[in-house]
Amino acid sequence: MYILYHAPATASMAVHMTLLEIGAPHRLELVDLGSKAQRDPEYLRLNPMGQVPTLVIEGRPHTESAALVMMLADRHPEAGLAPKVGTAERDQWTQWIVFMSNVLASTFRFWFYPPDLGRAEHPPEVRDALQRKIHSAWDRLDAHLAANGPYLLGDTLSAADLLLLMYMRWSRNMPRTALEWPALKAFADRMRQRDSWQRLYDIEGLEEWRS
Amino acid sequence: MYILYHAPATASMAVHMTLLEIGAPHRLELVDLGSKAQRDPEYLRLNPMGQVPTLVIEGRPHTESAALVMMLADRHPEAGLAPKVGTAERDQWTQWIVFMSNVLASTFRFWFYPPDLGRAEHPPEVRDALQRKIHSAWDRLDAHLAANGPYLLGDTLSAADLLLLMYMRWSRNMPRTALEWPALKAFADRMRQRDSWQRLYDIEGLEEWRS
Repeated sequence: MYILYHAPATASMAVHMTLLEIGAPHRLELVDLGSKAQRDPEYLRLNPMGQVPTLVIEGRPHTESAALVMMLADRHPEAGLAPKVGTAERDQWTQWIVFMSNVLASTFRFWFYPPDLGRAEHPPEVRDALQRKIHSAWDRLDAHLAANGPYLLGDTLSAADLLLLMYMRWSRNMPRTALEWPALKAFADRMRQRDSWQRLYDIEGLEEWRS
Repeated sequence: MYILYHAPATASMAVHMTLLEIGAPHRLELVDLGSKAQRDPEYLRLNPMGQVPTLVIEGRPHTESAALVMMLADRHPEAGLAPKVGTAERDQWTQWIVFMSNVLASTFRFWFYPPDLGRAEHPPEVRDALQRKIHSAWDRLDAHLAANGPYLLGDTLSAADLLLLMYMRWSRNMPRTALEWPALKAFADRMRQRDSWQRLYDIEGLEEWRS
């Protein structure tokens, strides 16, 4: 039984969706960001950075959403979300997940938390620069999907796609959303039809960007 | 035969060190950053982001240093740099590599490339904020090593340690270097005695931060 400490519509979404795709028994624990529950000493013992998600596996807490998605996919090979270690597909999978974590996740964090760059709000040149960086990631992912899609690994859905869908969703209130890139739009339209995504929305009580 | 497109003292170092640790046959191809060879159309076909390193595996180019280190460790289980998939050690390994990629690698990139944040040089509040973020990663890694060291996974060296050593080196000209954290200092002193690190320095023609 996994325990997922989560908050609706945050970085925990991809982990929650992975659990639903796998059909793995799990319990959800809500971390109420509104009351700053992520800074609670008890929660900080599980997650020293004070972030969601935290996934408890066999009694041990783990952090970093991209890592959690990889762990779950690897622990449930029958779900087919992680290619076998040592294959060309595995190399691709690892590359895309680290690319998204390194370029998208970190830049989005700065985008959403201007204090992480020392200001209450981003000055215009910082906003522009962060957007350019996120756009460059969409450029690369869109070109890859257009040439090799419909999924990041071609014909086969993998955990990398669940992360990509979540990161795309984070762009929905930006001046240019990821849906303006045609291959990404086709990818999202396909992914958002999945039962796991629709169930995720029901469970987390979400509506925006549902389909 | 692997081909590593690299430049001395850059993000390719950890990949180069991994190849040396494994003892895997490889050829080095120098990307001359001084003459902007990383923007060369031929290189951009291998690495669309125009960055080093690129690792060619069985004829296919791959990017993202943390991902390359994971791929190599997984392709050479006999070297013992990657715990077996589905184990508690593997979960730890994945978490630390993604944490360092997400928090350290990306923040260092902004630190070293102010234009990525829209300015020729960082204003003081941005410098301070980026340093705080890097320091928070040292805090977490130092506390972990002090309690669970000497390596990130405890008694066993893994690919995650090779990445950590490289990221620590990147801090060497910052106002506070990672060596000011005692458990990190002990870790670096131990790691820098390895043959692979000394050979890396010889091959890449480096001196600074050697031991």
